[in-house]
Amino acid sequence: MEFSFYDYIGLSGIMVFTMSGALAALEHKDHHHDLFSVFFTGFITAIGGGTLRDITLGNYPVSWVRDENILWAIFVGFLLVILLPRMLSKLRKELFLFDTLGIGIYTVLGTRIALDHGVNYFASALLGMISAIFGGVIRDTLMNEVPFIFRKEIYATACLVGSVLYILLNVWNVNDNINLILSATVVVSIRVIAVRYNLGLPKIKIFD
Amino acid sequence: MEFSFYDYIGLSGIMVFTMSGALAALEHKDHHHDLFSVFFTGFITAIGGGTLRDITLGNYPVSWVRDENILWAIFVGFLLVILLPRMLSKLRKELFLFDTLGIGIYTVLGTRIALDHGVNYFASALLGMISAIFGGVIRDTLMNEVPFIFRKEIYATACLVGSVLYILLNVWNVNDNINLILSATVVVSIRVIAVRYNLGLPKIKIFD
Amino acid sequence: MEFSFYDYIGLSGIMVFTMSGALAALEHKDHHHDLFSVFFTGFITAIGGGTLRDITLGNYPVSWVRDENILWAIFVGFLLVILLPRMLSKLRKELFLFDTLGIGIYTVLGTRIALDHGVNYFASALLGMISAIFGGVIRDTLMNEVPFIFRKEIYATACLVGSVLYILLNVWNVNDNINLILSATVVVSIRVIAVRYNLGLPKIKIFD
Repeated sequence: MEFSFYDYIGLSGIMVFTMSGALAALEHKDHHHDLFSVFFTGFITAIGGGTLRDITLGNYPVSWVRDENILWAIFVGFLLVILLPRMLSKLRKELFLFDTLGIGIYTVLGTRIALDHGVNYFASALLGMISAIFGGVIRDTLMNEVPFIFRKEIYATACLVGSVLYILLNVWNVNDNINLILSATVVVSIRVIAVRYNLGLPKIKIFD
Repeated sequence: MEFSFYDYIGLSGIMVFTMSGALAALEHKDHHHDLFSVFFTGFITAIGGGTLRDITLGNYPVSWVRDENILWAIFVGFLLVILLPRMLSKLRKELFLFDTLGIGIYTVLGTRIALDHGVNYFASALLGMISAIFGGVIRDTLMNEVPFIFRKEIYATACLVGSVLYILLNVWNVNDNINLILSATVVVSIRVIAVRYNLGLPKIKIFD
Repeated sequence: MEFSFYDYIGLSGIMVFTMSGALAALEHKDHHHDLFSVFFTGFITAIGGGTLRDITLGNYPVSWVRDENILWAIFVGFLLVILLPRMLSKLRKELFLFDTLGIGIYTVLGTRIALDHGVNYFASALLGMISAIFGGVIRDTLMNEVPFIFRKEIYATACLVGSVLYILLNVWNVNDNINLILSATVVVSIRVIAVRYNLGLPKIKIFD
C-alpha cells in the first residue's frame, strides 16, 4: 500500500485530533480520567466527524473501519499523551496550531468526499464543516459540557468559509492540490486571527 | 422538478422545526448564542430525526443530502428568526401549533418511509416516532439539557399513537392521502389536548 | 423461523439491557419518569450499541429493524420493570450479573459480526466493545449525566480484553462456540472481580 499526499495529511490530522481530545479528558476539572477514558475520548474526537460524514453519505466502509492506519495514528497520539502529559499540556500554543491545522484539513477533505459522491453544493459545504467539528461536539457532549462550538470564538464558521471557498475554486477548475492547500489555509488563518483578536460572530439579543 | 403534496408539507415541517430550534437557541438562559449557533441548532432540530431514521434504514442518500430544497427551507426559517426574533418569540402560541403540525407530518411520513422499506410494523411505528422527536432530542442534548421528551406533557406518545394508527389504516387499505391527514391530525389533537389540560402519562413511583 | 443458540443468548442480552436501562430511568434522582420515558430509555440502552455498530459497518438492515423479536424482547423487559419495579430494584445484585452477562454476549457477538464483514482486527475489537457499551453511553448522555464508562470501575476495558481474546482464538482456529463462551466468560469475570475489589485502571495526574 502506497501513501499519497492526502493520506499523510489525513493521518496527521487524526493524530493531532486524538491528542487534543485525550488532553481534554486529562485536564477535565471534575473527573479523574483513567487510561481507557483518555484513549476513548481521543478516539471519539479523532473519528467522530468523519464517521458522521461517512454514515450520512452512505460512504462505506467508514474510513477507520477500512484503514487500520487511522487507528494506529490514534494509538500513537494516545501514547504521546500518556507518556508526556505535562510536556504536551504546556505546549498548548503549539497544539492549538496543530488542532487548527486539523480542522483545516478535515474541512477540505470532507468537502472533497461529499462532492465526489455527487452531493449538492450546499450539503457538501455543511458536510465539510461537520467532518471538522463533530468529533469535538461529541467529545464535549459525552463529557457533559456545552459543545465548544457554541462557546468559542469563530470556529465552525471558519470551516464553513473554507468549504464554500473550496467548492467555488473547484467550480472554477482551479488545480485541486492548490485548492486544497489554499482553502485549508483560509480556515487556519480565520481561526488564528479570531483567537488572537478574540473575534466572535454577532450575537442576537432577544431580551433587553 | 415538480413538487408533490408530500414535498410541500415536508418542506413546511422542515422550516417550522428550524424556527423552533433556532428560537430555543436564542432564548437559552445561560448562553448568548451567536449567528452560527442559531443556524446550527435550527439545522440539527430540523434534520436530526429524519437523518437518524434514514441511516437506521440505510435509506441513501439521506433526504437533505439528496434534496437541496430542504436546506433552503432551513435557511429561510433561520433568516426569519434572525430578522424577526422578538416578533417570533411573542408568537409562541402560533409557533407551538406549527411545531405540533411538524411532528404530525414527520410521524406519518417517517412511518410511510419505513413501511416502503419493508420494515416490520413494530419497528415502523418506532421509526415514525423517532423521525418526529429525535431532532429535538439531539438539540436538547447538545444544549446540555435533559431532553424535553423526558419532561413535557404527552409528546412522543402522541407520535406513537399516530404511527400505530397510520399502520392500522394502511393494513385496512384506507386511501393513503386520507390516512396521512387523519393520522397526522390525531397526533396534533392529542398533543394540543395534552398541553391545554396539562396531561401526562402515569408515573411510576419506586420510592415512597 | 428457527432460533439458533446465538439468537437465544442475543435476545436474553437485549431483555436484560432493557431492564437495566428502564430501571435507571425509574431510579433517576431528579426526574419522575413517565411510562414512555421508562420504555424509551430501556429501548435506547438495549439497541444503541448494536445500532451504532451496524450503521458504522453498513450492516443493513439494522438488527431490530430486521428482527421484530428484538422489539418484543424489549417490550417484555419493559413490562417486567413497570409491573415489578420494587422487586427488581431490590434484585440489583442479580441484575448486575445479568447486565454483566449482557455486555459479555454483546462484546463477542459484535466482534464476530465485524470480522464477518472483513473488518481489520483493531477496528473489530473496538466495534465489539462499542456494541457492548454504547447503549449505556447514549442512555447516560440523554439523562444528562457523565457516561458511566468514564466513572466506574473497569468496564469498557473488560469488553476490549474480551474482544481481543475472541479475535486471537479465532486466528488460532479455536472452535467458535467454545471461543464465544470462553471470551464472554472472561469479560464477565474481569467485570465481577473489578466490582468486588473496586479495581480501576491507573489514572494519570497532570496537576500536582
